[in-house]
Amino acid sequence: MSGDGWVAVVGTGPAGPQWLTPETADILGRATDLVGYGPYLDRVVADHQRRHASDNRQELDRAGHALDLAAEGARVAVVSGGDPGVFAMAAAVLEALDRDTEGRWRDVSVTVHPGVSAMQAAAARLGAPLGADFCALSLSDNLKPWAVVERRVRLAAEADLVMALYNPASRSRPWQLGRVLAVIGEVHPPATPVVFATAAGRGEQERLTVTTLGEADSSQADMRTLVIVGMPGTRVLEREQGTLVYTPRYYEGA
Amino acid sequence: MSGDGWVAVVGTGPAGPQWLTPETADILGRATDLVGYGPYLDRVVADHQRRHASDNRQELDRAGHALDLAAEGARVAVVSGGDPGVFAMAAAVLEALDRDTEGRWRDVSVTVHPGVSAMQAAAARLGAPLGADFCALSLSDNLKPWAVVERRVRLAAEADLVMALYNPASRSRPWQLGRVLAVIGEVHPPATPVVFATAAGRGEQERLTVTTLGEADSSQADMRTLVIVGMPGTRVLEREQGTLVYTPRYYEGA
Repeated sequence: MSGDGWVAVVGTGPAGPQWLTPETADILGRATDLVGYGPYLDRVVADHQRRHASDNRQELDRAGHALDLAAEGARVAVVSGGDPGVFAMAAAVLEALDRDTEGRWRDVSVTVHPGVSAMQAAAARLGAPLGADFCALSLSDNLKPWAVVERRVRLAAEADLVMALYNPASRSRPWQLGRVLAVIGEVHPPATPVVFATAAGRGEQERLTVTTLGEADSSQADMRTLVIVGMPGTRVLEREQGTLVYTPRYYEGA
Repeated sequence: MSGDGWVAVVGTGPAGPQWLTPETADILGRATDLVGYGPYLDRVVADHQRRHASDNRQELDRAGHALDLAAEGARVAVVSGGDPGVFAMAAAVLEALDRDTEGRWRDVSVTVHPGVSAMQAAAARLGAPLGADFCALSLSDNLKPWAVVERRVRLAAEADLVMALYNPASRSRPWQLGRVLAVIGEVHPPATPVVFATAAGRGEQERLTVTTLGEADSSQADMRTLVIVGMPGTRVLEREQGTLVYTPRYYEGA
């Protein structure tokens, strides 16, 4: 057992190295061990590092493994995609620490470092759909009841918040996005802009769709998609160079 | 008039170069002109660049100036702190384009590039307070009626969303944060964690305070402060290395 180990929770950004911060690059360079979901590790792992890849679930086990390694003296980077503080590993690492009633990890230094999250990449590629008040909601009901998801979506719509929807769809989550868009449609008009951003910033994989609440096809979303639902004031600009979407900073009407 | 000009809307991140992305560094290196609020430009300006500094208001004028320069062939970086898409210049530039009914800027290429926003820096320095569903709200009523601010805050509290509050206080905005905390206090218990993060990530200027809804002193906030108000499930961990705050990914009870 050594007191020199640490855990640093970092994020690569949602695409290639263009959005990986210098701070995170520095930490990754100093780490002896990388812990995280395999595809994220593949983006950043170097020859001298031990790679501890795991499935994209089991965040709590992964956090405990990282803390164990650090308690033994390793310098561990826990690697998320995006920002580790937004629907990613930072909360899981702190939850593991919180459950450590025996003080196993008492001496482990734990730090968190911000990154660019998927909603920011998606928003930037489209213009500025998050330009006013907004919220970020996960549609996954692995860790919260579905009724909570619907309730939050409805209240967010009533508050005229733009919504960035994480985890909108997967093989085990086929109908949820359609249901959420229907709930929002009970509050907002059908012309309200909706954006599907799949693999934003990842070159040829990227697919951006600008549609409306009335016409959105929720089957277009998959695990790599970030959905942004505007509010009634959100505007779409058709330019020769492409379509832009923004939510004005000012609030019009009531 | 040349067709080679462009406008790229970028953000420096909320502190020093540690959070400035490689993409943004590259754009800043290629720009002939930088447009933005003076202190942000000071972080990044190089000798060969023209510097167009302006007050932190007048975003629309500044956007128009950047587009004019680009229409004359300049390569213009519009520089925000933080993420340009979050309460910053991206929406203003698109709003200017939207108002360009004469097509003055029709040929100007406009791109937006994500960055680390203040709430992410603040959250990371404290742990993971934004670890579950959250919203980002500006308390400025320059561009929306105060009633809209209060209504959004109340609905966000009812939705159990963690709140990142931008522009919580200034000389012209002395009472608003206190009022907002009181509104949230009508929904959440007094023990709900609240974080004041002033100048997060800026070395010795940084001041982090972890308090509660019942005990928060809103006069601690100034223009450089980002306030995060948790939800009832948000947890505070006291460690020898410092205090951490996180919002669990799971939802407990109703």
